Amino acid sequence: MLCCRWYRMWSNMMFLWSIYSVFYTPFAFCFFRGIPEHLLDLECVQLIFLADVAVHFFLAYRDPHTHRVVYDQQRIALRYIKGSFALDMLGCFPWDAVYKFTGRMEVVRYLVWLRLYRARKIQGFFKKMEKDIRISYLFTRIAKLATVELYCTHTAACVFYYLATTLPPAREGGTWIGSLTMGDQSYINFRKVDLLTRYITSLYLAIVTMATVGYGDVHAVNPREMVFIVGYVSFSMLLGAYLIGNMTALIVKGSRTERFRDKMTELIRYMNRNRLGSDIRSQVKAHLLLQYESSYKRDRIVDDIPAAVRSKTLYLDTVSKVHLFRGCSEDFLSQIVVKIQEEFFLPGEVILEQGTVVDQIYIVAHGCLEEIAAAREGGSEEIVSELLPYDIVGDVAVICNTRQPYTVRASELCSLLRIDKQSLTGILQMYLKDSRQILSNLLKVHPNLAVES
Amino acid sequence: MLCCRWYRMWSNMMFLWSIYSVFYTPFAFCFFRGIPEHLLDLECVQLIFLADVAVHFFLAYRDPHTHRVVYDQQRIALRYIKGSFALDMLGCFPWDAVYKFTGRMEVVRYLVWLRLYRARKIQGFFKKMEKDIRISYLFTRIAKLATVELYCTHTAACVFYYLATTLPPAREGGTWIGSLTMGDQSYINFRKVDLLTRYITSLYLAIVTMATVGYGDVHAVNPREMVFIVGYVSFSMLLGAYLIGNMTALIVKGSRTERFRDKMTELIRYMNRNRLGSDIRSQVKAHLLLQYESSYKRDRIVDDIPAAVRSKTLYLDTVSKVHLFRGCSEDFLSQIVVKIQEEFFLPGEVILEQGTVVDQIYIVAHGCLEEIAAAREGGSEEIVSELLPYDIVGDVAVICNTRQPYTVRASELCSLLRIDKQSLTGILQMYLKDSRQILSNLLKVHPNLAVES
Amino acid sequence: MLCCRWYRMWSNMMFLWSIYSVFYTPFAFCFFRGIPEHLLDLECVQLIFLADVAVHFFLAYRDPHTHRVVYDQQRIALRYIKGSFALDMLGCFPWDAVYKFTGRMEVVRYLVWLRLYRARKIQGFFKKMEKDIRISYLFTRIAKLATVELYCTHTAACVFYYLATTLPPAREGGTWIGSLTMGDQSYINFRKVDLLTRYITSLYLAIVTMATVGYGDVHAVNPREMVFIVGYVSFSMLLGAYLIGNMTALIVKGSRTERFRDKMTELIRYMNRNRLGSDIRSQVKAHLLLQYESSYKRDRIVDDIPAAVRSKTLYLDTVSKVHLFRGCSEDFLSQIVVKIQEEFFLPGEVILEQGTVVDQIYIVAHGCLEEIAAAREGGSEEIVSELLPYDIVGDVAVICNTRQPYTVRASELCSLLRIDKQSLTGILQMYLKDSRQILSNLLKVHPNLAVES
Amino acid sequence: MLCCRWYRMWSNMMFLWSIYSVFYTPFAFCFFRGIPEHLLDLECVQLIFLADVAVHFFLAYRDPHTHRVVYDQQRIALRYIKGSFALDMLGCFPWDAVYKFTGRMEVVRYLVWLRLYRARKIQGFFKKMEKDIRISYLFTRIAKLATVELYCTHTAACVFYYLATTLPPAREGGTWIGSLTMGDQSYINFRKVDLLTRYITSLYLAIVTMATVGYGDVHAVNPREMVFIVGYVSFSMLLGAYLIGNMTALIVKGSRTERFRDKMTELIRYMNRNRLGSDIRSQVKAHLLLQYESSYKRDRIVDDIPAAVRSKTLYLDTVSKVHLFRGCSEDFLSQIVVKIQEEFFLPGEVILEQGTVVDQIYIVAHGCLEEIAAAREGGSEEIVSELLPYDIVGDVAVICNTRQPYTVRASELCSLLRIDKQSLTGILQMYLKDSRQILSNLLKVHPNLAVES
Repeated sequence: MLCCRWYRMWSNMMFLWSIYSVFYTPFAFCFFRGIPEHLLDLECVQLIFLADVAVHFFLAYRDPHTHRVVYDQQRIALRYIKGSFALDMLGCFPWDAVYKFTGRMEVVRYLVWLRLYRARKIQGFFKKMEKDIRISYLFTRIAKLATVELYCTHTAACVFYYLATTLPPAREGGTWIGSLTMGDQSYINFRKVDLLTRYITSLYLAIVTMATVGYGDVHAVNPREMVFIVGYVSFSMLLGAYLIGNMTALIVKGSRTERFRDKMTELIRYMNRNRLGSDIRSQVKAHLLLQYESSYKRDRIVDDIPAAVRSKTLYLDTVSKVHLFRGCSEDFLSQIVVKIQEEFFLPGEVILEQGTVVDQIYIVAHGCLEEIAAAREGGSEEIVSELLPYDIVGDVAVICNTRQPYTVRASELCSLLRIDKQSLTGILQMYLKDSRQILSNLLKVHPNLAVES
Repeated sequence: MLCCRWYRMWSNMMFLWSIYSVFYTPFAFCFFRGIPEHLLDLECVQLIFLADVAVHFFLAYRDPHTHRVVYDQQRIALRYIKGSFALDMLGCFPWDAVYKFTGRMEVVRYLVWLRLYRARKIQGFFKKMEKDIRISYLFTRIAKLATVELYCTHTAACVFYYLATTLPPAREGGTWIGSLTMGDQSYINFRKVDLLTRYITSLYLAIVTMATVGYGDVHAVNPREMVFIVGYVSFSMLLGAYLIGNMTALIVKGSRTERFRDKMTELIRYMNRNRLGSDIRSQVKAHLLLQYESSYKRDRIVDDIPAAVRSKTLYLDTVSKVHLFRGCSEDFLSQIVVKIQEEFFLPGEVILEQGTVVDQIYIVAHGCLEEIAAAREGGSEEIVSELLPYDIVGDVAVICNTRQPYTVRASELCSLLRIDKQSLTGILQMYLKDSRQILSNLLKVHPNLAVES
Repeated sequence: MLCCRWYRMWSNMMFLWSIYSVFYTPFAFCFFRGIPEHLLDLECVQLIFLADVAVHFFLAYRDPHTHRVVYDQQRIALRYIKGSFALDMLGCFPWDAVYKFTGRMEVVRYLVWLRLYRARKIQGFFKKMEKDIRISYLFTRIAKLATVELYCTHTAACVFYYLATTLPPAREGGTWIGSLTMGDQSYINFRKVDLLTRYITSLYLAIVTMATVGYGDVHAVNPREMVFIVGYVSFSMLLGAYLIGNMTALIVKGSRTERFRDKMTELIRYMNRNRLGSDIRSQVKAHLLLQYESSYKRDRIVDDIPAAVRSKTLYLDTVSKVHLFRGCSEDFLSQIVVKIQEEFFLPGEVILEQGTVVDQIYIVAHGCLEEIAAAREGGSEEIVSELLPYDIVGDVAVICNTRQPYTVRASELCSLLRIDKQSLTGILQMYLKDSRQILSNLLKVHPNLAVES
Repeated sequence: MLCCRWYRMWSNMMFLWSIYSVFYTPFAFCFFRGIPEHLLDLECVQLIFLADVAVHFFLAYRDPHTHRVVYDQQRIALRYIKGSFALDMLGCFPWDAVYKFTGRMEVVRYLVWLRLYRARKIQGFFKKMEKDIRISYLFTRIAKLATVELYCTHTAACVFYYLATTLPPAREGGTWIGSLTMGDQSYINFRKVDLLTRYITSLYLAIVTMATVGYGDVHAVNPREMVFIVGYVSFSMLLGAYLIGNMTALIVKGSRTERFRDKMTELIRYMNRNRLGSDIRSQVKAHLLLQYESSYKRDRIVDDIPAAVRSKTLYLDTVSKVHLFRGCSEDFLSQIVVKIQEEFFLPGEVILEQGTVVDQIYIVAHGCLEEIAAAREGGSEEIVSELLPYDIVGDVAVICNTRQPYTVRASELCSLLRIDKQSLTGILQMYLKDSRQILSNLLKVHPNLAVES
């Protein structure tokens, strides 16, 4: 369902309607008190959003902890209800009808602003675009910044007009628009002026203020307008600084997203040049994406921990619970711990392949793996066993110098602690007693090994 | 006392009063000449700040050199009196009463500005917030920048109004506010206008100038105002650049504070995942904080010193004073020096634990440590001896291959020089004569070792 | 032809004409409806651009894949026709004559804007300047930014004037210029005003808006002008942010180009100090330029691939197709693959010189190399054979400990996989069976080796 | 002389006069046509600058190549005459007198602008301040930026006024200042207005434009003023971007100078903590300063050269000219070259000390060193010999395992090629023939070695 074409079409349509709705909401609120007759049909759009709410109850999602896709109906519904369901529903309510029904209570109209919660969809769209390396990053970012800026200006323009209409008609000459004369056009009875002209004039004031041009041909007249301008100008200073900061980050390639994209582009170009198979491709891509999204960069964290603390904190707990090391001395374990390196694997990644020579042993720290026996004579592959935290992979192959008996594959996002064969052998030679302990542990689990030798 | 709840409440209350005081001071100075009767009660607030001065005489603090908390009454008082005591006291003075008493001497009123020294408290609050990783850094920084900008605008608005009032009433038509007409509101006799309207108009001018909007509906009229605007505009150019620079640094994650926060967040997430004990947690956190605050990153400094100079400067002085190396040749010492790495430990951190196999020896360079014998049969632990600079830790354990006899723990911030066992053994094999000298030094201090062997 | 002096002169002249053309086009479009009689000669300039189109059919170019210069007439022509030929031709068309001929159809005039495609030449010029380390980078960048800004302002100024002229003469009093009075100069019948004054007034409005000064003495009057200003101001906010971002990148040396230039400068200074020969100089320079242009930095990409995937993806495909390794076990090959490092060579670079002791073997991954026998007794050098992908270089010299029999030189851009002799020997000692296989492979190709030994 | 106190006082006084002169020159040019009687004395200041020119003929300087201070009278004079002498002299000329003498020729007055060349002194002052780590870097930079901005505004203010005065008095009503009315102050006959008021009004216009506030109460009126504003606004956009860029660089600590300062501060703090001797201190500081000023970071350059080219370019030329390696095979030399690392030494730095065990040999690549025999029995030290390029240091001590016979000290800035004893021994064991050649070379130079052994 996640991948099906119908959903993608629906999603794109909803995106377009969201844009329309987000721009139309402030306009309708500020320019009309109660939507005029000939525009009533536009309110029906809310029904589509209601349909979208329904769709969300059937939408599979990817669990952030295990990195598996969840198809379970009940879990999907529960997650949505706990999440954005309430706000989505309130946004679909026909507030304009309620307003007219309640005798034009101004307070009810304010609830229309809840519809802006749909801006979330647009944000999601831009996030997806930024990760898509087919579209120029510069273009995406500038489009996003321009959209933000334009939307703020649009909303401010609406509020400017709204401020003027809240005064009683007698005092409307004391508003920014009522006191305005532009060339041969006078705005004294501004409610009579063409709707488009009114909107353009508001937008003109809003953008001229936002961009700090401030011609002064249109300006605040009464204290209420001054107060709004004080707030709006403060806000637009921050927004301007944000715009410039983002532009600078774009140019000096300062953002993490951009570095991720550059890496990805180079990797793909590199894989094209070496004509790698499509399964390896998708594995490498998924791995890079995982790194970007969860920022797993363990090694550098560990560097900041003082050496004296390090040996105690790092993995000692995990390692001491591993069956193979049961009964070993603490000195031995702390030597092991120092040599450990942590690695992450996505669901489906192969850690060791059946029949290969093994150079490392892995201890499962989190997540879950499967041991798979390759298919004999055309049969399908067969899952031998499941590996859970504190299980160990590759121990027999490394210690007895045999080949890996089964393929080992991650079945959800898991972190493994890796020890090189060489490091392990070095430590075993130093701690003879522990070495014998380990062999006896190994024989307990695999009694057939004793027979073989 | 540092941690008690009452103090934290008091501290928060003082913070709120400081905000109020810092905003009210310029307002009172510029809009009132002598505070009007019905606002006199507000002056009583100064008494609270007087109480705060008293509280400061009982406030424990952390010494930056030894990193210990100081509870000694006398040292606390001395430190405060040398520090901000004088300015704090002057700020609490009822300058308004003095002003009226001295027959409204304008000069006396200027002393009110001393109260702005309280802004320090607000700065401290923001610094604390920035280090607190529960609050979004972006939010904290933007809140801080917005506060700074708003405060500058507020002060400028007050000064604008003050400038207009310093002219004799006859010439007030030649001021920015006296010559102003906004819609149907005329400001000719501006002292008669509503106080709030006057303040809003000032603020409007101030922010429209600060943000470089400059509508021009309100503008300077006489040369004095022009001079102030020249200064104010120059200042706001720099402030604007500072705002943008900070925003850019936020977006490209350029600041040290942000990198510290990122590291801390990842470390905590990491420690959660590995379910580390709370004592290790707090140790690791304190270590990272120390690194951040005092920027101890020794290794990189040493890299910049030329190789020829390095061996002479680095630690040679310290090492040659160590008892164990007495009588050794200079060649030998310079070999030792090259292998040294410096490490820092906070008060309470454990360097070596009793009964463990020791891999390094440590030479005390600065600070003070304690040797502790673990409690036998339920008794409490016992401090065996204190280690001062030029003492050496772990020498017996490393050279005689025994286990560490006592736990060694830092009792204040101390820097230790670490040498790996392996490096030491390597050097000892090359310098046989020095090797013998060291053994004889060791026997002098621990005569019982000779008996044992 | 690429290097000849005549072409460079022509190229510089075309650059100057492009500047003129790009600035003149919007001016002519907006200020004249149909070019006036006394300026008709200027249209003849288009003929020169026609000549330039012809020249492009004979212009050698450097192929981006092989890095060789292409002189083949047909390929040059084909590339140009597929590329910018159509737009270049349309730009040369005498649109003004067509306009008059078609009875002054406004639509035809819009096609004049196609000439702006020539801006490409100016862009190319700036790109060349940026790479030229004799010219200060700061100067080049600021010149470029100033040019962009100036050009945008110029175009906007033209459009401002054009907007005023599109209204019927009766309503021209309601335009920004028709309603303007500056000191004693009135613009009511603005078409009668001196052309230069009109242009300067437009430019004044455009730049005062672009830089967000916005005095307000000249400002929009009717809704159409407001709409244009809304768009123009939005654009200039982005342009301003782009300007500032670039300036910041210049100051923090954030751009790749600048880092390349710094490196190049230091390298040249370094080579001067060591008085290196001119052939080595040009090789080193070309190498650095290649790195900059194609950003070949393989090693860092490979680091991001997980270790488990790495051994399968990296070069295994290439290595298994090499004749020398035919019949070797997969374990052996994966050991080889881990030790591989990729390097790039430009056409003409020498990889191994005849008669030297060889330390590495190279496997050709892409591109083409030549084996050259040095000239004996004054004769010219002789190409012995050509090496294509999956060929191997230096194998005999390394395995049999003899000297390199021929000089090996890259004949186009090629990537080689390098293995150190030491690593190879180490692996061969571990895999005795594969070692024997390799020797037998070697003897098959070079049967004379068996005789020698 | 460089260090004497008198010169520093003179230098500071000249700095203050330069500031005055640089600010006064545009003011005098634009506000007075021929300096009025009562200000004539100010022209006498030029005599002081004449004295400064004389002082420059006796000022020792540091040669950038050898890093030695040059005291030679003739070389100092020659350097100054070739340098800034001509412009310094022209700046001291009494142009105002010449102007009056030549019958008030406007052209002559333009030569006054030559005096701005003195701004160089102010720039030098700021550069010195930036390197001084006692002064806050943030403060220095902001002071510099504020000065630049203020100076540009001041000059623009002067030019604005000058533009108004160049029109004939009849048309002065059509200038920005002639058409101005501010409150009750009218500027119609602006030449009659108080000089200070005129200057403040100009400055107000200049800064309101520079900071893009643009109230519009004062604005351009005729086309000439518009043209100037177009230029001035373009310039101030770039200046604003430069200001912001610098501020950002300050905040993200992006500049090289700041990194240098941070390093220096940490080094000094570090050396204080370790109580290092003052001679080592000054050596380390000088070394860091050298690194900063000449950006000697060899290793990273070499990394960019392809491995195949590297062995040929790097030092091979130097190494093959060394006497010790005469007659060695090219293979051997190229092995040596790979192991080489380049280091720089300042005049006075000690490379090897008499009587120590030597671990490296050094080959002189550039510059000059001295061999010094330590003083015996209270006598002063004695220079044994001078080492020039291609000489070798420490060869006897390393090859014969003896101690260094003499102290070696750099007498000017020199670069040495360092080879580790270990690397050298390793190579010698591989190339037995070359090894023998080297021994025979050594014996030729030091025949007494043969006797000893």
